[in-house]
Amino acid sequence: MRRSKRLVLLSKFLSDNPNRIFTLKFFGEKYDAAKSSISEDLNIIKDAFLEGGEGVLETIPGAAGGVRFRIKRPPEEIENFLSELCDLLSDRSRIIPGGYLYTTDIIFSPEYASRIGEIFAQIFVEKEPTCVLTVETKGIPLALMTAKALGVPLAVARRDNRVTEGPSVNISYVSGSSQRIQNMALPTRALSKNARVLIVDDFMKGGGTARGMIELVRQFGAEVVGVAVLMGTALPEEKLVKNYVSLIVLEKIDPEQGIIRLKPIELAVKN
Amino acid sequence: MRRSKRLVLLSKFLSDNPNRIFTLKFFGEKYDAAKSSISEDLNIIKDAFLEGGEGVLETIPGAAGGVRFRIKRPPEEIENFLSELCDLLSDRSRIIPGGYLYTTDIIFSPEYASRIGEIFAQIFVEKEPTCVLTVETKGIPLALMTAKALGVPLAVARRDNRVTEGPSVNISYVSGSSQRIQNMALPTRALSKNARVLIVDDFMKGGGTARGMIELVRQFGAEVVGVAVLMGTALPEEKLVKNYVSLIVLEKIDPEQGIIRLKPIELAVKN
Repeated sequence: MRRSKRLVLLSKFLSDNPNRIFTLKFFGEKYDAAKSSISEDLNIIKDAFLEGGEGVLETIPGAAGGVRFRIKRPPEEIENFLSELCDLLSDRSRIIPGGYLYTTDIIFSPEYASRIGEIFAQIFVEKEPTCVLTVETKGIPLALMTAKALGVPLAVARRDNRVTEGPSVNISYVSGSSQRIQNMALPTRALSKNARVLIVDDFMKGGGTARGMIELVRQFGAEVVGVAVLMGTALPEEKLVKNYVSLIVLEKIDPEQGIIRLKPIELAVKN
Repeated sequence: MRRSKRLVLLSKFLSDNPNRIFTLKFFGEKYDAAKSSISEDLNIIKDAFLEGGEGVLETIPGAAGGVRFRIKRPPEEIENFLSELCDLLSDRSRIIPGGYLYTTDIIFSPEYASRIGEIFAQIFVEKEPTCVLTVETKGIPLALMTAKALGVPLAVARRDNRVTEGPSVNISYVSGSSQRIQNMALPTRALSKNARVLIVDDFMKGGGTARGMIELVRQFGAEVVGVAVLMGTALPEEKLVKNYVSLIVLEKIDPEQGIIRLKPIELAVKN
């Protein structure tokens, strides 16, 4: 296979499998080429991904070593994307009676969900999560795309216990905003004891749901390495979760006057 | 930018945005290159994607024309993947008390969900779906990845009506297997009247849920262009849905004897 074709297929493969380590030997066999040729290919790809703002191709030394592609976009690009998202979400036609904001089309859009998941992954990759956890329903697309970008599995807690998923760990928690008691269940086989869990959700107000997920992870004896939400409300300032990253802050929503005020986080600081 | 770098970034871009049309002008501006150079790049990528079994890069003529990457894997490769999946799912430790099969880890795995979604997309792309529809919860990862592979949005019906999503169309339907009456709701803004809808779900037994989704689509005045499920039971043979594609047939599950019998579909025929 000629170099140009290998470059195309290698680029696609690395892009499809972010944050996972592959050996030169693996690629050599896959593309029927000498390790030295693959090594040269990877140098070209490394420069291109860097120059194109896609991410970094890292060389991991040692016996378990190889190369790994990590998505890493320039902070300005992410901030621009979040600003656009804020503009899109500030359209007053999105106000739902009761003072809610319609975000479903964004969250269920594969394109937006991918980009948001990649941002979460980029922010938390250094914490080395081995699993992403969310709770049904609207958190799932973002959490799935985050897990994809991190190259790790996804676990989804259910609002009620499902007979089709076997034994589960169940918890009750108080929703931070509505003060109602809610349930959450996760199959016992969904999470291992030594998991490093990144919690992902679409929205946070009081933080009760995220707190519930933290409690659920503790019941498995696993560790929470981060909490990421797409949108968090400015108020209440004190949430039930201390450390979390919210890409967008919902500062105000006024159904009467048709005002929505959103602010993207500044990533140059966070990153 | 040198050709080799353009090849890397173009390959990644096309791979990240399947089934969407982009003009040479767009790429020329994006990578600061002459249209003739981009055209040569695309020819190399076309050959590589074809040779690597990734898919086809099509040239669409006319005013709205350009190039489009469609995922198209060799039928044998898909059949091998489905055979592996059947082996994985036939492990008797997956039998849940009550005679269910634990599939959650597969469905929520970004890697498996991607591959399954890409297969659904490949099978139905000629029907030109403009939207993918599923119902919460386990259908979501597969449906999202199908929508991503088709470059179209996803709509998710909820089991109950959510105040946070505004006005919705609600239907009641009878579950084919349990004969219970169930509800399904979809926000009115989630689906347009001229949508061509591909319905995706993880599992089908009696077909009641899929039938419910078909009814929901009709209420919007839209059209169903296909029904795709990962796993369908062999019995009952007569389902409430006439035309559907099931990648895996669950022929038998016997909790007492620990027997699971699964069969992948033959794609050489279907494709």
